Amino acid sequence: MTQVFDVVGKSTPKRDGLDKVTGRTRYLHDLELPRLVHGKILRTRLPHARIVRLDTSRARALPGVLAVLTAEDVEQRPFGFAKDQLALKRGKVRCIRDEVAAVVAETPELAEEALALIDVAYEELPAVFDPLKALEPGAPLVHEELATNRHHLRYQFTHGDVDQALAEAAVVVEDTYRLNFVTPACMGTMVAIAEWDHAGNLTMWTTTQAPFLYQRDLGDALGVGGDRVRVLQPPVGGNFGRGLDVYPIDVIAALLARAARRPVKVEFDRVEEFVACPTREPCAIWLRTAADRDGRLLAREAHVTIDGGAYTSWGSTTPYVMLSTVAGLYRVPNVRFDTTIAYTNNPYSGSMRGYGNPESTFAVESQMDDLADRLGIDRLELRRLNASKPGDVNPQGFVLTSFAMRECLDAAVEEIAKDPPPIATGWKRGVGYAGMFHVGGGARIYRSDGCGAIVKLDDFGKVTLITGASEIGQGSETVLAMIVAETLGVPLERVDVINSDTSVRPWDVGTHASRTTFVAGNAARLAAEKVRTQLLDMAAAQFDEPAAALGVKGGWVFFRRDPQRRLQYEVVARAGHFRDGGRVLVAESFYDPPTTMLDKNFQGNVSAAYTSAFQAVLVDVDPESGRVVVRKVVSAHDVGRALNPAAAEGQVHGGVHMGLGYALSEKLVVDRGQILTQTFMDYAVFKAGDMPEIVVRLIESVDAEGPFGAKGLGESGVIPVAAAVRNAIKDAIGVRFTELPITPERVRAAVGARQR
Amino acid sequence: MTQVFDVVGKSTPKRDGLDKVTGRTRYLHDLELPRLVHGKILRTRLPHARIVRLDTSRARALPGVLAVLTAEDVEQRPFGFAKDQLALKRGKVRCIRDEVAAVVAETPELAEEALALIDVAYEELPAVFDPLKALEPGAPLVHEELATNRHHLRYQFTHGDVDQALAEAAVVVEDTYRLNFVTPACMGTMVAIAEWDHAGNLTMWTTTQAPFLYQRDLGDALGVGGDRVRVLQPPVGGNFGRGLDVYPIDVIAALLARAARRPVKVEFDRVEEFVACPTREPCAIWLRTAADRDGRLLAREAHVTIDGGAYTSWGSTTPYVMLSTVAGLYRVPNVRFDTTIAYTNNPYSGSMRGYGNPESTFAVESQMDDLADRLGIDRLELRRLNASKPGDVNPQGFVLTSFAMRECLDAAVEEIAKDPPPIATGWKRGVGYAGMFHVGGGARIYRSDGCGAIVKLDDFGKVTLITGASEIGQGSETVLAMIVAETLGVPLERVDVINSDTSVRPWDVGTHASRTTFVAGNAARLAAEKVRTQLLDMAAAQFDEPAAALGVKGGWVFFRRDPQRRLQYEVVARAGHFRDGGRVLVAESFYDPPTTMLDKNFQGNVSAAYTSAFQAVLVDVDPESGRVVVRKVVSAHDVGRALNPAAAEGQVHGGVHMGLGYALSEKLVVDRGQILTQTFMDYAVFKAGDMPEIVVRLIESVDAEGPFGAKGLGESGVIPVAAAVRNAIKDAIGVRFTELPITPERVRAAVGARQR
Repeated sequence: MTQVFDVVGKSTPKRDGLDKVTGRTRYLHDLELPRLVHGKILRTRLPHARIVRLDTSRARALPGVLAVLTAEDVEQRPFGFAKDQLALKRGKVRCIRDEVAAVVAETPELAEEALALIDVAYEELPAVFDPLKALEPGAPLVHEELATNRHHLRYQFTHGDVDQALAEAAVVVEDTYRLNFVTPACMGTMVAIAEWDHAGNLTMWTTTQAPFLYQRDLGDALGVGGDRVRVLQPPVGGNFGRGLDVYPIDVIAALLARAARRPVKVEFDRVEEFVACPTREPCAIWLRTAADRDGRLLAREAHVTIDGGAYTSWGSTTPYVMLSTVAGLYRVPNVRFDTTIAYTNNPYSGSMRGYGNPESTFAVESQMDDLADRLGIDRLELRRLNASKPGDVNPQGFVLTSFAMRECLDAAVEEIAKDPPPIATGWKRGVGYAGMFHVGGGARIYRSDGCGAIVKLDDFGKVTLITGASEIGQGSETVLAMIVAETLGVPLERVDVINSDTSVRPWDVGTHASRTTFVAGNAARLAAEKVRTQLLDMAAAQFDEPAAALGVKGGWVFFRRDPQRRLQYEVVARAGHFRDGGRVLVAESFYDPPTTMLDKNFQGNVSAAYTSAFQAVLVDVDPESGRVVVRKVVSAHDVGRALNPAAAEGQVHGGVHMGLGYALSEKLVVDRGQILTQTFMDYAVFKAGDMPEIVVRLIESVDAEGPFGAKGLGESGVIPVAAAVRNAIKDAIGVRFTELPITPERVRAAVGARQR
Repeated sequence: MTQVFDVVGKSTPKRDGLDKVTGRTRYLHDLELPRLVHGKILRTRLPHARIVRLDTSRARALPGVLAVLTAEDVEQRPFGFAKDQLALKRGKVRCIRDEVAAVVAETPELAEEALALIDVAYEELPAVFDPLKALEPGAPLVHEELATNRHHLRYQFTHGDVDQALAEAAVVVEDTYRLNFVTPACMGTMVAIAEWDHAGNLTMWTTTQAPFLYQRDLGDALGVGGDRVRVLQPPVGGNFGRGLDVYPIDVIAALLARAARRPVKVEFDRVEEFVACPTREPCAIWLRTAADRDGRLLAREAHVTIDGGAYTSWGSTTPYVMLSTVAGLYRVPNVRFDTTIAYTNNPYSGSMRGYGNPESTFAVESQMDDLADRLGIDRLELRRLNASKPGDVNPQGFVLTSFAMRECLDAAVEEIAKDPPPIATGWKRGVGYAGMFHVGGGARIYRSDGCGAIVKLDDFGKVTLITGASEIGQGSETVLAMIVAETLGVPLERVDVINSDTSVRPWDVGTHASRTTFVAGNAARLAAEKVRTQLLDMAAAQFDEPAAALGVKGGWVFFRRDPQRRLQYEVVARAGHFRDGGRVLVAESFYDPPTTMLDKNFQGNVSAAYTSAFQAVLVDVDPESGRVVVRKVVSAHDVGRALNPAAAEGQVHGGVHMGLGYALSEKLVVDRGQILTQTFMDYAVFKAGDMPEIVVRLIESVDAEGPFGAKGLGESGVIPVAAAVRNAIKDAIGVRFTELPITPERVRAAVGARQR
């Protein structure tokens, strides 16, 4: 019997949508505070240099300037994943992003003027911009105190006997895949607003998407406890992982506010955003895949080399996820994985949507396609043959429960064949495929992967969900409200969501790993179930029937055996409140998925559910100009259950957009440590008119652990795109690209090379 | 054995204090919002008139004006206690406060300019300014549709046989006491900021002190459900009851915002505040007291006549409390009480600190003093003889549990005798006494007198209390934090309080009737106890001891039998969170005192605890000039337990300040419906330099139901002051005043009259 839902499963406009499209949203940028003053940051001009003079006296003397800070002026503590940077750099600079001074003034213009009055002199140092060169003897050291540029992070994994498998394989394919810098290019730039109270408590208005970790990390960076930091998250114009770490902007805003004794806003302009926003990490993935004659995978081996840049943020940790692709995207019994991560004088990288998985999926799915060619097997057959199935336990120990990869594949194949558009004369057409494997039920990368929720139902029938989860545009507010409305049996518009103040909200690990619908959704569901129980207990007294004989649906509490006997739920709530021994309806819950952290061997079941997707891409290529036009993208996703189908489709559309840029046009050009692409004239994101037809198929595997069966979807749209595009181009013109983006220039050059 | 507390009982600075004295507090007035525009209100010039022309066309045409509203332009619903007024008056005006039009413009200046362009013509109507004249046949009708000026409200009470008691009495004294308009004169004027979202939800930033009732009442006035109204309460500069009702400013701000489709701020200037802020009601209390020869009270009879003004707010309902003074201040077996409440063309009154009790206590305690004179009994002996005691049930059925009136009397008498200051030549000195009786454990005037609380304890050891209670400067944030800290056994500075957003907070009836420490305090305590239980359960696993064997104090969880075995509480919380099956610490509670509403005969036990106070006042009077200088006030209060002694004293100081103004200097002069005192030059509040020495004695009766034994104190400081001052003046110069304020002019006139 199919479950019938009132709210869940119906496409529902995102709550923040109308305000956003009508310009009413008050973004973080729009925040006004009495006595607010403005901070600006002076960065180095050279990627590696000793600071030999730093004279701020003229800047300090400028009327309207409240403070000028350098590393000499403030006590600082190293922060970041490896605690390897200070917000204001001391002695030397290591990459072009490095902050040497900061100014706070009455207006942004005065702050800018003051920056120009700071006198800095550098002694340029030899620099290194390539991770492998950085490891050569005698290479300039990025951090002298470490005595090496080799990062202490290393991800080594072995499962089965790879060497034997390679020896026994009928076919082995091998390549190195090169991924370059891209940047999230959020419409809203980074902003940090800081204010201290007289007792030394800090309030931060910030772009963070992991407020409770931010609280801890920023507190540490400032030498105060995390309990001194209150984090508020006004709406942001995109984030895509940018908000998962503390960055110098945050620390500097707090230091300036402390110095000025005023609230301070630091807001990046667009150029600064291109320069200083954390990027997706550049990397090289050497990958080898072995198969038997029938196409059954026997082994994979990968070595990932990551340019970590000058400091460590999440970019250096992406092999964590790359490994799960190498070991988990298709059944593969023997796996070996290793990494080289090095410091260079390049900018450092953060996490960016998919967090390693678009990179590794590009390698794995490109290689799957080439393997099919080498085996002479149909590329879809090869994938069908090796697709994981429910019940599988993969080499890392991931337990696949619901898992509909084959259904996704079939759906994508079916859709891409429909109504092919006409093709222009002289152009070549190709279809490419790629699947992906990702966590869909949280990801235990911290000791807690939990989320708290509080639900209250007031005398007016208004329901408030106070959730730990952060809305960063992904639609979590809407879907969490839907989950609460469905669980309580009340109309959706009666549910409010509160989600932007660490003082108010219970804990959550943050918006990452496509976990919010699953984890925060389960927390919300559990708290709402408790309130429903309280409500039915109240109603039991009023109906004079046992609570178990009552139900609640569509805003009515009713007697199951005679649904005409019913009361509006808010009437029940008021009657339960306004009486002797009355009470109001409030309940809380905490949900932490039943998972384990990876052990030191990178084994463990990190997610309560895994998900897959399969994409088919139709491209037309003009061999003359090298131009690639994507005509159609089909993206089929195992969503468990689509709680808000329109929002789910929207997530996929956004992912496809980002993936197409990654595949074809976006490249943050970093040359000898300098960032050359500093505007949207140089950095080519896909514009609306560039976008192809997108068909989304949502496959409902109904996960047993997910809220109403749902699994995470936030990242899966972006993950396979580049590989599918690459495979489509190969299908069209026979060229096997191994580096992104596949620009017209590269296509033309490749076609030319083949013709020569 | 005395209980030892870590936090409770120690004088603690108010949390909002430092910010307020250093100018950092962001009051409601300081709120800035993007796109904020400004509203202004046009009021009538005449107290009773028909509107014969109202032309807003020139105002509408002014560039920068977004909307001009009159009653013709908007749909309105009557609001207020008796649903007898509209925000924008239709057809006629009934008092000088009446709103005839409202403007919203880009700046306050433009709005002001637009007001001047509105063309209004009135036809003046005969008016009535005296409640008794209003009831005469042929008096002009304030509300024609009611066909009478007699208010439907009437408070009639009888207990025992008053007539027989009067007949048997040795002495009967009788007088009429006249109380005039006073105004709370808050340092922060009234402000309402309104913003609608696209879905028709309204956010209000307001001076309300009863946000959940405001939500309902404003929603009704606007024709939307209360669930459409979100109420936010930034800090206010005083309230004193002003925020207990919805007033036209609130409705008008919302109507303007709806018309302008922008957030709108309406902010009173000082003149407007004097004109339009609700006042303490003017009234005449005819009172008769009968006693036997020994001074034992036999009966009281009172008739209260209230000038209700043009519309009904809380001022017309104050006999509810006046009755409890007449029936409850000293033991009196036979009581008769009645009221006459009439509409007039005067301004209408709201609730103001003490809510009827300063008025009735002035009457009762003046009369007690005169009764002692008539009986020839010492005035303190008379009071001692008749003082209520624990275990008493008074004529209304109020059950006195803890009750330390005699101890308060003794303390006040003891303190006033100490160190008399020198007296100037020619001046006369007097000492006056007055007690009071008030609710101290909530007041069930609604069907719920409850408050909800949510407590969370995070990974940093930071505790957040989310309370329904509103902070309006009375120090509730501080004392509630203390209650939570004491209950949990954690340092006070680790506790935050969230209390200003109806979406986040659980329900509370509002800040009134001195109920917050008692009711919200109990709710906070109960929620904190649940969190403590959760914490000790977590610790049980970590200590491998039963939870009952563990304690928590001073931030440490310890093993009771060996207190050296201990862990910091935040370490316990983190360990309980970051493990398999971990959870965070959140709990909620709701406390509604075990009380009953008054029945139709005004019988019932409305409060879970009652309290008393006794004041002694030393005055010097210059018979020549009529000047009265208060040299010393002693105020002794049964506080149950003083949770924050300094704040308790502060409450009393503030109350004494307000009471001295009421007694001697404050009068809102209303002449033929016009308010003549419109500035602090005319309206004489006591300045810092005018204040006498104040000695506060806090008597701890340790109430069994109160949190840590505490009872309410918010209003009791103001209640007896006027009577004690009046009695002191009588003691000094022998004149029995029956009207407030006792100005030098009146004193001089009275002395002159006696000398003639």
